[in-house]
Amino acid sequence: MSLTVTVLGATGSIGRSTTDLLAQHAGRFRVGALVGGKDAAALAKLALEMRPDFAALADESAGPALAEALTGSGIPNGAGEDAVLEAVAREADIVVAAVSGAAGLKPTHAALRLGRTIALANKESLVCAGDAFMRDAARYGARILPVDSEHNALAQAMGDGRVSDIAKMTLTASGGPFRTWAQERIAAASPAEAAAHPTWSMGMKINIDSASLMNKGLELIEAHHLFGIEAARLDVIVHPQSIVHGLIAWRDGAVTAGLAMPDMRVPIAHCLGLGDRLEIARGRPLDLATTGSLTFEPADEARFPCLRVARAALAEGGAAPTVMNAANEIAVAAFIRGAIPFYGIAELVERACERFAPVYVRAPEDVEEALAIDAEVRAWSLEAVPQARAAG
Amino acid sequence: MSLTVTVLGATGSIGRSTTDLLAQHAGRFRVGALVGGKDAAALAKLALEMRPDFAALADESAGPALAEALTGSGIPNGAGEDAVLEAVAREADIVVAAVSGAAGLKPTHAALRLGRTIALANKESLVCAGDAFMRDAARYGARILPVDSEHNALAQAMGDGRVSDIAKMTLTASGGPFRTWAQERIAAASPAEAAAHPTWSMGMKINIDSASLMNKGLELIEAHHLFGIEAARLDVIVHPQSIVHGLIAWRDGAVTAGLAMPDMRVPIAHCLGLGDRLEIARGRPLDLATTGSLTFEPADEARFPCLRVARAALAEGGAAPTVMNAANEIAVAAFIRGAIPFYGIAELVERACERFAPVYVRAPEDVEEALAIDAEVRAWSLEAVPQARAAG
Repeated sequence: MSLTVTVLGATGSIGRSTTDLLAQHAGRFRVGALVGGKDAAALAKLALEMRPDFAALADESAGPALAEALTGSGIPNGAGEDAVLEAVAREADIVVAAVSGAAGLKPTHAALRLGRTIALANKESLVCAGDAFMRDAARYGARILPVDSEHNALAQAMGDGRVSDIAKMTLTASGGPFRTWAQERIAAASPAEAAAHPTWSMGMKINIDSASLMNKGLELIEAHHLFGIEAARLDVIVHPQSIVHGLIAWRDGAVTAGLAMPDMRVPIAHCLGLGDRLEIARGRPLDLATTGSLTFEPADEARFPCLRVARAALAEGGAAPTVMNAANEIAVAAFIRGAIPFYGIAELVERACERFAPVYVRAPEDVEEALAIDAEVRAWSLEAVPQARAAG
Repeated sequence: MSLTVTVLGATGSIGRSTTDLLAQHAGRFRVGALVGGKDAAALAKLALEMRPDFAALADESAGPALAEALTGSGIPNGAGEDAVLEAVAREADIVVAAVSGAAGLKPTHAALRLGRTIALANKESLVCAGDAFMRDAARYGARILPVDSEHNALAQAMGDGRVSDIAKMTLTASGGPFRTWAQERIAAASPAEAAAHPTWSMGMKINIDSASLMNKGLELIEAHHLFGIEAARLDVIVHPQSIVHGLIAWRDGAVTAGLAMPDMRVPIAHCLGLGDRLEIARGRPLDLATTGSLTFEPADEARFPCLRVARAALAEGGAAPTVMNAANEIAVAAFIRGAIPFYGIAELVERACERFAPVYVRAPEDVEEALAIDAEVRAWSLEAVPQARAAG
């Protein structure tokens, strides 16, 4: 009996890796719904290859182009928020939630309310509304499988262990392009320099987050929610080769670790396998004798203040991560367009956290509240950008 | 409710680490029987500290000294084979089987026939009679937990995974004192040079096995039996820091690994915990940022022919590992006393394997048959030593 897999964010990087695996294991899987953003041509092409039950675009204005491209294919399709929710409502054994950004919150949460097994790649679901998400996952019986390489590795390293037996859970960071740079040089770094990621090929925003280590800060917050582990037992270590993705030190001194070559198909395959291990065509197996050396160094919060800011938001809890994430999105965009220097990102985020700490104390109750806080902090941060410029 | 733990080989290195842990967790454990070899004073001292239900020495002639030392203590004691079997027969939730060498076979197998949970540190049980041991473990419902750091790490890395999903199971080797030596220099190495182990503190025999990589060959054979995995999916990699102890590469490209500082209390605690994690007083937690670098290199069978010979014995199966182990014990002893050069060890073992291959084809049916083959091969090997000298 084949498993039905729905992919939210089908035309993105995670979505492509997912459909690649689904096609390789066509006997095991059938494709439920494919949901894209606004690229009608890309989604139509993918739909014609994969023959989903339904194809939807989030951008309503791209609907006619999609309908046109799928004319005669027999593939039902639609566009806009209702079409996305219709796609999510289609029967599925696994929903791969890979829409990036705050736009991923609603469809992911809709899948969760249906009690689906969710392969979660949307960071914001946990960063902006983690308490509400995890509470509702328990309430509706949804299972959340982490797609991020770090969290997936940690889930594998957990085995059948108990969180109460963990001494320390450590996520690795590549260290980004500024790993070996002096603080003064980082301060003057250009967006192009910040976007040059050494080991992973990702989007611009996530590359900047990787350079600032904010990405790792967001992942600490995700790990807190996914594994139910508090800030004091979460740690980050810099590991430039990006081969060891996560480590769990147990109370007895034993450590289990999850490793893999940097290839997102590995964690996706782990999620799709539901306990089985799927072979990956054209995968590069890890060969440590060829790799030769795995190196580790402390994460430097002086040169990478975003990590310190994220840790503080995690420790503070409540709405602090929601605020931090929204301010970071605006700050990164401002850095990319040259409005603020690199360290202006951490400055702006920290100012936003200070500004909103007395306003939003408790965690958002639901996705709507998270999105409302997100919108308010974005608006405030946009206003704040010129001041950050002056401060930088 | 406390768990009763019996320790076979209580005065050895593994035994000491075990009683250290039992004393630290006195509320959780009570001590069943303590069994030593021939050191009455050491066993009596330990018994007076640990207050076991029974204390026994394998060496009957040491019985009077033990009885004398325990006079008035109220601790029942005895010596000789029957006393050891009486010790094994005492009620126990866990039996730590840490008698080294072929002498460990009978008491370990006796515990197995009683359906005990066995924390197994005696290599020979699996190397000499692995088929019989694993068959009887299943028959009598005995659970075998590996104490060796490599196999314990692999058991942890297995989590709830399936052996059929493993692409490759890899044991690490420190590489021993000759890791960087040229072949000519190894050929002329002295026993003292071979016994200088870089990371672990162990006995002379095991240090020589570590220098020749025969130790890793024996561990491949153990892994084959413990995990039910065939030779083709077992591998060895040299890792001088001895921090990563074992790695499992899964079919999907993910790798899980078991790490720890070199401290035998870590795997022992894992066995004793039976799924719980016991804290270890004065343990050194792994700190990879301080370690800095983990290096890996291929195992070189040209410079370390014992590894090739052991792989061949594992691939051949049947009684080949039994023969190999017996010949290796004699060869190592001959090397230690200067009767053969270092490469004479592999030569003698290979000759024994060739000599006995047509004689003993199938695996020993039981411990008695394994011990009979062991004795015959030892006798032959002792005779063969001078020829090996001439050949070297």
